[in-house]
Amino acid sequence: MDIKVFRLLLLAVVFCFGANVTTAQVPSRESLAHAELLRKQALAGSNAMAIVTSLTTEVGPRLAGTEAESRARAWAVNALTEKGFANVRTEYFVMDAWKRHAESAEIVAPYAQPLAVTALGGSVSTEENGLVAEVSMFETLDELKRAPEGSLAGRIAYVGHAMQRTQDGSSYGYFNKARTAGPSIAASKGATGYLIRSVGTDSHRFPHTGSLRYREDMPRIPALALSNPDADQLERIAASGKALSVRINVNSSELRAAESGNVIAEVVGRETPEEIVVIGAHLDSWDLGTGAIDDGAGVGITMAALELIKDSGLAPRRTIRLVLWGAEEVGLLGASEYRKRHAAKLGQHVIGSESDFGGGRIWKITADSQTEEGDKLFAEIARLLAPIGIAPGSDDQPGGGPDLYPLIAAGVPTLRLHQDGRDYFDLHHTADDTVDKLDAESLDQNVAAFAVFAWLVADSDVSFRASPE
Amino acid sequence: MDIKVFRLLLLAVVFCFGANVTTAQVPSRESLAHAELLRKQALAGSNAMAIVTSLTTEVGPRLAGTEAESRARAWAVNALTEKGFANVRTEYFVMDAWKRHAESAEIVAPYAQPLAVTALGGSVSTEENGLVAEVSMFETLDELKRAPEGSLAGRIAYVGHAMQRTQDGSSYGYFNKARTAGPSIAASKGATGYLIRSVGTDSHRFPHTGSLRYREDMPRIPALALSNPDADQLERIAASGKALSVRINVNSSELRAAESGNVIAEVVGRETPEEIVVIGAHLDSWDLGTGAIDDGAGVGITMAALELIKDSGLAPRRTIRLVLWGAEEVGLLGASEYRKRHAAKLGQHVIGSESDFGGGRIWKITADSQTEEGDKLFAEIARLLAPIGIAPGSDDQPGGGPDLYPLIAAGVPTLRLHQDGRDYFDLHHTADDTVDKLDAESLDQNVAAFAVFAWLVADSDVSFRASPE
Repeated sequence: MDIKVFRLLLLAVVFCFGANVTTAQVPSRESLAHAELLRKQALAGSNAMAIVTSLTTEVGPRLAGTEAESRARAWAVNALTEKGFANVRTEYFVMDAWKRHAESAEIVAPYAQPLAVTALGGSVSTEENGLVAEVSMFETLDELKRAPEGSLAGRIAYVGHAMQRTQDGSSYGYFNKARTAGPSIAASKGATGYLIRSVGTDSHRFPHTGSLRYREDMPRIPALALSNPDADQLERIAASGKALSVRINVNSSELRAAESGNVIAEVVGRETPEEIVVIGAHLDSWDLGTGAIDDGAGVGITMAALELIKDSGLAPRRTIRLVLWGAEEVGLLGASEYRKRHAAKLGQHVIGSESDFGGGRIWKITADSQTEEGDKLFAEIARLLAPIGIAPGSDDQPGGGPDLYPLIAAGVPTLRLHQDGRDYFDLHHTADDTVDKLDAESLDQNVAAFAVFAWLVADSDVSFRASPE
Repeated sequence: MDIKVFRLLLLAVVFCFGANVTTAQVPSRESLAHAELLRKQALAGSNAMAIVTSLTTEVGPRLAGTEAESRARAWAVNALTEKGFANVRTEYFVMDAWKRHAESAEIVAPYAQPLAVTALGGSVSTEENGLVAEVSMFETLDELKRAPEGSLAGRIAYVGHAMQRTQDGSSYGYFNKARTAGPSIAASKGATGYLIRSVGTDSHRFPHTGSLRYREDMPRIPALALSNPDADQLERIAASGKALSVRINVNSSELRAAESGNVIAEVVGRETPEEIVVIGAHLDSWDLGTGAIDDGAGVGITMAALELIKDSGLAPRRTIRLVLWGAEEVGLLGASEYRKRHAAKLGQHVIGSESDFGGGRIWKITADSQTEEGDKLFAEIARLLAPIGIAPGSDDQPGGGPDLYPLIAAGVPTLRLHQDGRDYFDLHHTADDTVDKLDAESLDQNVAAFAVFAWLVADSDVSFRASPE
């Protein structure tokens, strides 16, 4: 029998008879009782909402590498110090930052009218009076890829592929290629400007920003996203068959060698403090909204979970480290920096999980455990989270949040608390990402899950990594 | 017995036994059968959605007195001519127009961040670099009125009164005084700038614009509305007790002697064409959205209703006149102009009704009939509309749409088809007022009501006016 299948079967058995499994001493009765207490306390009301309200009110938008992100770090150090965590510190790094100054677009012909747009993160500027060009319409990025060489010379390319609503957000990686890769693909066909339908699921006039990635071998062309209603409008007008021309205008700048940083705080382990359970969220946000769902919610959830554990007065065996990642939105820069800086100690990073999918309730838990003892502990965690509506999933692909990708690549196992994201892409990367959209009870359910998971893993000596052969 | 009470009782009796009342010959069996046919055809699918889609796509925003409103008139004349209506014409007039160029606001201290704002219609400009001042917070307009003389010298006044959601929209008149009268009240206390929480019921970052009315005897100060989430943010920060200062920036201009106009089309009466039933909607919109709910919907509904009547091939006894009013948003200028121009003939205006409350379903019908025969006809109209969910109301205050106020003042009776407006002020006067928010079936129900009402009144010789004593 394949060892993986065997382990999955074992996991199923362990889960079904979970109540009897505590005899296996993974984890101890006391540890489980403490996890139950944490869960109860979280549901009775955590500080998550107060934390995200404070961050989004007192700092507001906090674009990576800007003075606003620096104020967010100061806010975080202050909040973490006030809460009495150990080893509160900032690990600084240097990055090239991008800044938005102004943007606009309008239909010039056949029906003159303004369009609601946002420059994509990283977009170069147009000339001062903007760029006026005829628009070539593409339904999908694949259709754009198939356009003949040079066929878009002097034109603006538009890709209208509409993202669909999902619970797990899994289609984002597919649809956002129109945003990330699209500009250079358009440039490779000769286009001088690029427009997309926002990668978002709402029908409000909020365009969704987000990073693009220019290829080194292609001209950098200005790139913007239209709100969904404006994309509909553009497509309706194009369907009339009349020549469609648009003016786009972007004014942006780059800041070389700007400062960013990861803010770190800990509850230090009582027995093996060098072994680390990493939880966290990213501190930076896009500049349009106040970054409440992306990712103030995650900051509130994970900071409140660690606070509950600290305030319970019982230190776990291992250290729980909260990392508030810097410069996530512009390419996981803080996470890459962390990997470099902590390379020698990543072997002692037991497991990681990030909260970065808004404020929706958690409905599923998965982990990429590579050991039987890890599977057993996972089953115990799942058993304690089942009463709050969380089901164990069979998907054991590494995951657990974008900032963990560099750690995953370095072999750190992950656990993923899957949030319901059906509404996440209504607000994601828009001006409408503000704190009024969050629900305190839903955040508390997330806090319960993070507290239970982090406590149980940190209070154990279980490894999730396969031993080297 | 008071004559009014008697008439109401009679109305109740007539309504309860409506089915038997056709013996009274008001209206004829044939006329009623034709009205039923029109209702059926409307529900089977009218052109309302196609009309509002065409207007909002091919013209888009159409602010009063601008070149865009002129394009809307051209669109209307073209559409009405194509549909084959009689006497299609524009009645031009001259007005002072206002134009928005740019606006912004930001919190300067204690927590620097941008705010989502819109200049109120008519707002003067700030100096080029804007106006920075400390903010004085007021919960209501009444609280602002009670502020001591001179107490706001050099400050920006903020009024945060939050509009509540209603079905009939009746509280708009109360809440919008903070917008219309507020700026001059603030100026009278010495304020140099004015901010309000938007007069709107949504929780998105769309500020709601709308006209202000400066008093002649007060300095004109720049005035803007914050979106509801930004108003919440400002109030949270003010609650911290720290001094709150804001920069506001408005760039606007006035166009003296700009052109506007009412566009008119008719189905001419077969017996007494000089007697007029007026239906319609306003053609202008605010500049932020494409004016789909305010008032493209009304244009679609009333134009489609008249189209159904025309296409049925049967002319009513009287003329039905569609008026697409110009420059409604900035003070009912088209309606006032119409009153002046048609003063001699207003005695022959039988009744009027405007559709100007979005695209929601009609739930109530009222009229300010002053005659028994008018009450009887009203009861017949109500009986035919009952199957589509419309109940007769007892409120016989004149109404029927803002553009009718000048006609009401001149003695023209009105009939009001009350739409469900619970969501109307989510979108009203925002950038988010676009055609994707409308529902075709709901528009068709409105078309059915307008067609039935307009047909039955126009095909009768009933008067709704009390004879002069």
